[in-house]
Amino acid sequence: MSNQNNSISEIAAVDLGSNSFRLQLAHVVDGQLFFHDSLREAVRLGAGLDANKFLSSEAQQRAIDCLRRFGERLRGFPPQAVRAVATNTFRVAKNASQLLADAEAALGFPIEIIAGREEARMIYVGVSHGLPIAEHKRLVIDIGGGSTEFIIGQGIAPQRMESLYMGCVSFSLRFFPDGKITERALEQAEIAAASEIQNIRPHFTAAHWQEAVGSSGTARALGEIIRLNGWSEGEITLDGLNQLRAQLLKARDSKKLQLEGLSTDRAAVLPGGLCIMKAAFEALGITRMTAATGALREGVLYELLGRMEHHDIREHTVRSFMRRYHADHAQAKRVQKLAEQFLSHISDQLRMSHDTARQWLHWAIRLHEIGISIAHSGYHKHSAYIVENADMPGFSRMEQETLSLLVRAQRRSLSKITLPPAEHDYLTLIMVMRLSILFQRNRLDDAPPQLHLYREAPGHYRLQIQAGWLAHNPLTQAELSNEIDYWQLVNVSLKLS
Amino acid sequence: MSNQNNSISEIAAVDLGSNSFRLQLAHVVDGQLFFHDSLREAVRLGAGLDANKFLSSEAQQRAIDCLRRFGERLRGFPPQAVRAVATNTFRVAKNASQLLADAEAALGFPIEIIAGREEARMIYVGVSHGLPIAEHKRLVIDIGGGSTEFIIGQGIAPQRMESLYMGCVSFSLRFFPDGKITERALEQAEIAAASEIQNIRPHFTAAHWQEAVGSSGTARALGEIIRLNGWSEGEITLDGLNQLRAQLLKARDSKKLQLEGLSTDRAAVLPGGLCIMKAAFEALGITRMTAATGALREGVLYELLGRMEHHDIREHTVRSFMRRYHADHAQAKRVQKLAEQFLSHISDQLRMSHDTARQWLHWAIRLHEIGISIAHSGYHKHSAYIVENADMPGFSRMEQETLSLLVRAQRRSLSKITLPPAEHDYLTLIMVMRLSILFQRNRLDDAPPQLHLYREAPGHYRLQIQAGWLAHNPLTQAELSNEIDYWQLVNVSLKLS
Repeated sequence: MSNQNNSISEIAAVDLGSNSFRLQLAHVVDGQLFFHDSLREAVRLGAGLDANKFLSSEAQQRAIDCLRRFGERLRGFPPQAVRAVATNTFRVAKNASQLLADAEAALGFPIEIIAGREEARMIYVGVSHGLPIAEHKRLVIDIGGGSTEFIIGQGIAPQRMESLYMGCVSFSLRFFPDGKITERALEQAEIAAASEIQNIRPHFTAAHWQEAVGSSGTARALGEIIRLNGWSEGEITLDGLNQLRAQLLKARDSKKLQLEGLSTDRAAVLPGGLCIMKAAFEALGITRMTAATGALREGVLYELLGRMEHHDIREHTVRSFMRRYHADHAQAKRVQKLAEQFLSHISDQLRMSHDTARQWLHWAIRLHEIGISIAHSGYHKHSAYIVENADMPGFSRMEQETLSLLVRAQRRSLSKITLPPAEHDYLTLIMVMRLSILFQRNRLDDAPPQLHLYREAPGHYRLQIQAGWLAHNPLTQAELSNEIDYWQLVNVSLKLS
Repeated sequence: MSNQNNSISEIAAVDLGSNSFRLQLAHVVDGQLFFHDSLREAVRLGAGLDANKFLSSEAQQRAIDCLRRFGERLRGFPPQAVRAVATNTFRVAKNASQLLADAEAALGFPIEIIAGREEARMIYVGVSHGLPIAEHKRLVIDIGGGSTEFIIGQGIAPQRMESLYMGCVSFSLRFFPDGKITERALEQAEIAAASEIQNIRPHFTAAHWQEAVGSSGTARALGEIIRLNGWSEGEITLDGLNQLRAQLLKARDSKKLQLEGLSTDRAAVLPGGLCIMKAAFEALGITRMTAATGALREGVLYELLGRMEHHDIREHTVRSFMRRYHADHAQAKRVQKLAEQFLSHISDQLRMSHDTARQWLHWAIRLHEIGISIAHSGYHKHSAYIVENADMPGFSRMEQETLSLLVRAQRRSLSKITLPPAEHDYLTLIMVMRLSILFQRNRLDDAPPQLHLYREAPGHYRLQIQAGWLAHNPLTQAELSNEIDYWQLVNVSLKLS
């Protein structure tokens, strides 16, 4: 991603959550993170979702305004020093794509929408870095605004992750509109949460871990309230949760609730958060839980640090996918070698850096044949399906979509694919990938002929082939002629010389 | 499929190929097949495909007329004694579905469109039963009208199968229109065939087998011509193919070609078949090949016999998929047990037999969670994707589509699925499957409550639940309430009592 990591001394994570947006800054000193500044705004984006999953323009405006302020703080940061991630509300909002474009403009940096399990994984990374070293397994529960993550891990390694579509904002709005609290509403919210949790219960019950940790604002608020009101000795307990439940019922309205440790901000989303936590305690057999400070944004920063120091979790993911789906390593190497050669011919015409382009090709080529595990017929489509839908630790949802596009376009007709415009780098990457695969189709270690790829203008490519070689390789000649036709149908010109 | 196999003494296979349609009959005596009658008509359906893959009405009429004649011969056969399969032209024709309905009406039996690899597998079964017993591996090549199958196997077990989209009819039409033969046309056809074969070459070269066998009319015609003209001592050889090629060039027109062993029928599709065979010899390093008599229709009959005697290859496939995708056996058993109970309540209201309904549920339930191997989120969709796209030996394409529907509809919203109409049995199977999964969601071996499912009318179901049980199981109660809503959105009524 970058060769300049020695010069970066400050990195930043932005977390666009469903309840609040956060900016966390850290200094990097000797490969260690020192958190030194943070901003939080209770944008409550999730509350702006209507019944049809459209975000209101007011909520969008709150988001943009907040990101503009964050953007000001980040001015002058190099791109590789900032990572911004968006979670559940962006995942589900029907009009997220327009907001995303506006949000990126306001922030001044790209924003990645990450999948629920990916969020869970990074939360664990963030939380575990802030906890004492221990040998035992930990359960981390992170009740967010729109989703709740459950992770079991050991040390700093997450082992099992799940993300459920329920959060303190969405549950409070759904079961306690206007803050009204009734016994029936509490019961219904608890059952709805238990119903979600039952999906993942078999792998998360107390038999699978030794310590339960709650991250996120909900857990910290519950811990504070229970401790300050003397309902436990500092931990979250089922008894403490029940005491709080009784107080809520008595107040009848979350807006009227007055309790030690409860901020006005938090009161509005407390009933939903409480019901989810209580259901988790009961369904998973939790007896006590400590609240921790680390969270998604710290996880994002640790990953950013790792990437800069070349411990990229995505490398590990691609390797494990090649194993799981029995990909042909030797063939991937052959194709990659040729692709790197082509890339060196045209990389000065790309907008992205040579390193980034090389990275995309590297991933796509190593994954391009995994679909054969489903069926040989149409395997490029199956590869693309897996890449788009699988949990791929370290990859954002958008990265998976891009990879899926490259993999989908690896061979055969291009006319049914939504291709990027001619100016876009991805189109050139697709050209490089297809030609590399075409010249390595015989899967032999014979050296390919001398080749040179030229990009003469957007959408205009020329491939120079060692004189006389095609005449002795009529098969490749026929395939190149098909290849030219495939491109012509999508108005891209490929010429031979 | 049937409990009446003792009474069946005659079974039949219908092969709707791209070149010819065939009917093969056999007597079953002591679990052995004795072929005793067959019909063949050169319908040349593949020749009726236009450039946009639409079948001309003339070709359709030829198909219907032929099937009506076959149907007459099959009158009085019980459904389980007949299996009709359609291959490449049905796979690719855009208007195949209407033709399929008409064809089934004309024949009087259902017709299954089978995938290329499935065709390859059954060809091997058919061919191998007609060959001497041997220890070594065999390569079987079957050049059909629209596709060519390559299979490596040992004994009667196929081990590796591929189907390529090229055949003697399609190649003859494409490269030799009006029968005109030129050196250039021959070269182009050979290169196109070689290009297809290169896709599968690594696993099919001579290093992978000890004997090459050609099935289908093309191989038999080539063998006959080469033998009768004295170009080999009875086998197909590269030299023999080249001699024939020279004769074709000399004649300049396949219609004018006069050769010992060549029928007028065959002459029209000989040039395409020859080029495919020559390319296969050269690409795979074949030096000699014997022509065999067995083919797809014999394979279909052996499978039909196996099913009736309960050696159903589909059982083996489902078991191997459960292993490959790490399905939870214990959970499948729990769900299946409950599904069988529900089925016993309503099976007398189904049009299909109890055995058939049980079979569908059995397969669908054992495959319903395989998509978790791709991702937990949306796993029902991933399961359905795999079932629809994977090579599943023994299953026809339509069976895979039906299974995929059942698996897709296993949980969550039904409103985005194309459901069968209320009268259709599949709707009831979906209801049975969903309720069975719902009551076994906790994955425990606790007995579910007493339940009874009623189908009061098409689209109207009632579930009777042990009195008082729901009151102590609020989670299931909440889920049943969601379930009722899901069905209501697709105008199906589910009531509790």
